[in-house]
Amino acid sequence: MVASLRLPSLTSLLFPATTRYPASLRRTVCLRNRPLSGFATAPSGTASPETKSSEIDRLRSDRAVTPRSQDFNAWYLDVIASAELADYGPVRGTMVIRPYGYAIWEAIQDYLNVKFKETGHSNMYFPQFIPYSFIEKEASHVEGFSPELALVTVGGGKELEEKLVVRPTSETIVNHMFTQWIHSYRDLPLMINQWANVTRWEMRTKPFIRTLEFLWQEGHTAHATPEEAEKKAKQMIEIYTRFAFEQTAIPVIPGRKSKLETFAGADITYTIEAMMGDRKALQAGTSHNLGQNFSRAFGTQFADENGERQHVWQTSWAVSTRFVGGIIMTHGDDTGLMLPPKIAPIQVVIVPIWKKDTEKSGVLSAASSVKEALQTAGVRVKLDDTDQRTPGWKFNFWEMKGIPLRIEIGPRDVSGNSVVVSRRDIPGKAGKVFGISMEPSTLVAYVKEKLDEIQSSLLEKALSFRDSNIVDVNSYDELKDAISSGKWARGPWSASDADEQRVKEETGATIRCFPFEQTQGTKTCLMTGNPAEEVAIFAKSY
Amino acid sequence: MVASLRLPSLTSLLFPATTRYPASLRRTVCLRNRPLSGFATAPSGTASPETKSSEIDRLRSDRAVTPRSQDFNAWYLDVIASAELADYGPVRGTMVIRPYGYAIWEAIQDYLNVKFKETGHSNMYFPQFIPYSFIEKEASHVEGFSPELALVTVGGGKELEEKLVVRPTSETIVNHMFTQWIHSYRDLPLMINQWANVTRWEMRTKPFIRTLEFLWQEGHTAHATPEEAEKKAKQMIEIYTRFAFEQTAIPVIPGRKSKLETFAGADITYTIEAMMGDRKALQAGTSHNLGQNFSRAFGTQFADENGERQHVWQTSWAVSTRFVGGIIMTHGDDTGLMLPPKIAPIQVVIVPIWKKDTEKSGVLSAASSVKEALQTAGVRVKLDDTDQRTPGWKFNFWEMKGIPLRIEIGPRDVSGNSVVVSRRDIPGKAGKVFGISMEPSTLVAYVKEKLDEIQSSLLEKALSFRDSNIVDVNSYDELKDAISSGKWARGPWSASDADEQRVKEETGATIRCFPFEQTQGTKTCLMTGNPAEEVAIFAKSY
Repeated sequence: MVASLRLPSLTSLLFPATTRYPASLRRTVCLRNRPLSGFATAPSGTASPETKSSEIDRLRSDRAVTPRSQDFNAWYLDVIASAELADYGPVRGTMVIRPYGYAIWEAIQDYLNVKFKETGHSNMYFPQFIPYSFIEKEASHVEGFSPELALVTVGGGKELEEKLVVRPTSETIVNHMFTQWIHSYRDLPLMINQWANVTRWEMRTKPFIRTLEFLWQEGHTAHATPEEAEKKAKQMIEIYTRFAFEQTAIPVIPGRKSKLETFAGADITYTIEAMMGDRKALQAGTSHNLGQNFSRAFGTQFADENGERQHVWQTSWAVSTRFVGGIIMTHGDDTGLMLPPKIAPIQVVIVPIWKKDTEKSGVLSAASSVKEALQTAGVRVKLDDTDQRTPGWKFNFWEMKGIPLRIEIGPRDVSGNSVVVSRRDIPGKAGKVFGISMEPSTLVAYVKEKLDEIQSSLLEKALSFRDSNIVDVNSYDELKDAISSGKWARGPWSASDADEQRVKEETGATIRCFPFEQTQGTKTCLMTGNPAEEVAIFAKSY
Repeated sequence: MVASLRLPSLTSLLFPATTRYPASLRRTVCLRNRPLSGFATAPSGTASPETKSSEIDRLRSDRAVTPRSQDFNAWYLDVIASAELADYGPVRGTMVIRPYGYAIWEAIQDYLNVKFKETGHSNMYFPQFIPYSFIEKEASHVEGFSPELALVTVGGGKELEEKLVVRPTSETIVNHMFTQWIHSYRDLPLMINQWANVTRWEMRTKPFIRTLEFLWQEGHTAHATPEEAEKKAKQMIEIYTRFAFEQTAIPVIPGRKSKLETFAGADITYTIEAMMGDRKALQAGTSHNLGQNFSRAFGTQFADENGERQHVWQTSWAVSTRFVGGIIMTHGDDTGLMLPPKIAPIQVVIVPIWKKDTEKSGVLSAASSVKEALQTAGVRVKLDDTDQRTPGWKFNFWEMKGIPLRIEIGPRDVSGNSVVVSRRDIPGKAGKVFGISMEPSTLVAYVKEKLDEIQSSLLEKALSFRDSNIVDVNSYDELKDAISSGKWARGPWSASDADEQRVKEETGATIRCFPFEQTQGTKTCLMTGNPAEEVAIFAKSY
C-alpha cells in the first residue's frame, strides 16, 4: 500500500478508520459543520451565497452540536468545529489550531512556563531536524519511534546524503548537545525546556488528541546522581498534577506506567491519567526518568568531585496540545464546550438586551461600564453588543463556546441598577441570579466568587464522575466486567508482561498506571493470585 | 554535486563558503570557542579533562572574544559562543538557541505579542507541512522559494504520494484555510498571527542571521479593500519600527523595497533596514501588501455588501530570531555583547567583593538586600555570589555578556551604606559612580534612571553612527565611492531593474529601500539623469 497523503482530508480526519458511525451520520455531521463559520457571522436577513437558507434555519434551531449523550465522538468533533477551536489541515492528520483553541493553549503555556522557571528551568530551542543516525543510537528509542517518523530527504533541490528526521521528540539531539556542554559536576544539574512542534506519523488521528503534528513543551534535565533525576521526574509530574487539578479542573490520577507502557528509552515513566466524559482514559502528561540510557548512547559524561568520569542521569517530561482535547472531553455537555474559568479565554460574556431603540443607548452604556469594571479587575470579559443577533441566539452561542458566566443587562436592570448573572455549569433558571448590583465593587466581588465556585464545582463534578466509574476488582472476571461496562478497573497486579498483553487483547484495556495513591494491606494479584505490591488501573484509552 | 548534510558541522557554520578569513585564523577561533562553556563554569583549581590548562590560561587572560575592531565576523561568532547565545546544531546550517539567546527572543516576543493583540490580531497555529502543489499555485512565490525547500518524502515508513514542503513561510496554507473561513464581508478583516519555526535551505548560513531553521512570527490578514490592506501593511512596519527604536535601540530606516527586492508573491514589501557595526545592512523585518496574488491563486473570495464575489486583499509580515543577531551587531563592542536595558534578560548584576572571611557575611547580606529591593521594583537583577571566581573575573564576564549595569559592594561600601554603580556602555572609570546610597528608594530610582539613560544613549550612539555612514550621492561614481568606502549611499533613483542589477553586480550593493522619509524638491536619477521621485538607499547587506 502506498502511503497516505490525501487532499483535502476533512472526512478522513473526521472519520478515521476506527470510527463506528455509519455513513449516513457522517454526511449529516459534515453538512452541519462546514457552513458554521460562515453562518455565525452572516447577516440575519441576507443569506451569503455559500449558505443555503434551509441549513441556516436548521442550524439556528439546533446549534449544530450533536448531543454528547447521543454520540460522544460526533459531539466532540461538532464542538471543535462549532466553537471554532480547530480545523483540518490540508495534509491528512494535521490540524489548524484556530484562535479560540489556541487561546486555551496559551493559558496552559502561561501557567506552566512560570512554574518551569520557578523550578529552575530555562527555555531554549533545539533544531527540529535530527540526523537519522541519532535516532538509531538508543535501541528501544528507535524501536518505539521509527514507525512514526517523517523524513526529509531533499533539501535545496538536492537529495541529502543522510536523511533527516523531523523531531518526534528531542532526547537524541538534546543529548548530542548536552555532551558538548557538560564537562564537570559543576555544569550540573542542567535543566532546560522548549516549546515546540513535533511530528509523529500517526495513522489514526483525532483533533487535539492525536495529530501528525502537535505543539508541546519538552523539558530535559541532566543530573549527577540517580536520586536527583528521580526527584526531578517526580517533581514535574507533581507540577502537571497540580496544573490539571487547579487550572483545568481535571482530576487526573498520577502514577507510574507499566514496563510495557514506558516511554521508548526511559527507565520509568510517570503519567497523569484523566477520565474523559465517555470514560475512556487520556494520558495527559508524562515525566520520564531516563536513567543513563541516552547518556550512554551519546557519551554524555561529567567529571565528578573525585575527577572520575560518569554518565549523567536524565529526565524528560512533556505536556501537549492534547490537553485542550482533555478539557473539552472532561467538562463539555450536550450544549457544547464548558471551560473552567481559570483557563477560559473569556470568563464572562455580557449580553445587552433591548427592544426599543430608546432603550438601546442606556443598556449599552450600562453594559460598557460593567465591562470596564470587570476588565479593570482582571476579569477576561467580552461584551457582545452586535445588533445582528437576538439575545437568545447569543445566549446559545456563548453557552456552546463554554463561557463560564453570562451577564444579562436589560432596560429593567438598568433602572434597577442591577444585572442578571447566569452560570454555564448550572442550566436554566437554577443557574440564574437576578438583581446583582451593578455597583463595581459589589459586582466584581460577586463575579470573582462565582468564577471560583464554578472552578471548584467543575472539579468536584469530574471527581465524583471519575470515582463513580472506577471499580475495585480482585479477579480477571471482575476486571472484564468493569471494562465491558465502560468503567475503569483497579486491582492488585504483579503478573507478567504477557498477562498484561493478554488483558489488552481480550478486553481492549491497558494498564494506565500504578497510581501513587495505594491502599495499605496485603494484596493478591487479580490475575495470578500471587502476592502483589501495588494496584494497577486498567482502562480503554485514547 | 550531492547535497550537503555534514556532521558535525561546527566549522562549516562558523566559516561558510563566503568567509574571507584565512585557515590559520579559523583554527584559532575554533580553539578559543569550543572549550568556553566548560571553562566558564569549571572550578578554578581543577581543570576538567576536556580542557587543557594552557587554553584555560589564555582564555582567562583574553576573555576569548576577538576585538570587534580587529575582525568583525570573528568577533560576532566569538560573542555568540562566549556569551552562550547559541551553538551549532548537528545538521549543517542549523542553530541551537541557548537560554541566554532565547531569553532575548522571549523579550522580543513579549513586546510584539502584546502589540499584535492590541491591534486586533489573534494567535493561532497552522501545520508546517504544506502539499507541494500549494507552493506552485502562486507563480512568483514558487520561483522565489523552490530553491530553498526542504521536502518530506517519507512518512510512517512509506513513500508519500505527494511530497510535503516544510514551511518556508505560510501564505499558501493560510490562503487554503482562509478560503474555507471567509464567505461574506462580515468575516473581514480576518487578522491572525502565528509564532512558529520555518525552514529555508540556505547555502550560506550565519548564526541568528541566516539559518536553515529559524523562529519567527508571521502575521496574515485579509481585507475587503486594497486601502485597508495597504493601511495594515504600513501599520505593521510602523509597529516594527517603534519596536526597533524603543526596545532594541536600533535606529532602523523604514521604507519600501524595490521591485527586484520585493517578497516573492507581494505587490509591495515594506522593510526596516538596520546598519550593523560593520556598516552592512540588515533587513530586520518586513511587511508585505500581497494584493490579490494569493487570493486569486487560492480562490479566497467574499460576498461584498451587494452580494458580489470579490477576492480578498491581503498582507503578511514577519520578524524573526535574526533580530537577535541585529542587536548583537548593532551595540556590541570589543569587550563583547552590549544589551539595551529594555530587552536585556539581566539588567543589573551585583558583584559582592570581600577579602577576609570576616567581611563576607556582611557584604553578602547587603548584596542580598540590594538584590531584593531591585527585584521588588521590577528590575531584572542577578547576584553573582559564587566564591569560585574573583570579582575581576566577574566584572569581565558580565561585561562580555552585555549586562547594562553592575553594582559593586565591598566592605567599605557596606559600612558607608552605599554601593558603586558601573555602566556597561561607558568603559572604565568614566562609567563608574561611587557612593550611591543603598537605601532602597534612592537606589531603585537611581538604577532605573541609569537604565533609561543607557537605553537612550545606545540609541543615540547607533543613530549618530548610522547617520555618519550614509552618504548622499548624485551620480553613479559617487555611489561607487560611498559603497567602496563601506558606507551606505542615498540618492535619487528612477532607473530600470537592469540598472539596479548592474549596481549590484558592480558594487555588491543593493537597494535596501526607498525610505519613507524623503527630502523635498526636484530630484534627478543618479544613474540616468531622468527625473526621479524618490531617493533610494544602497548598501551591502547580510
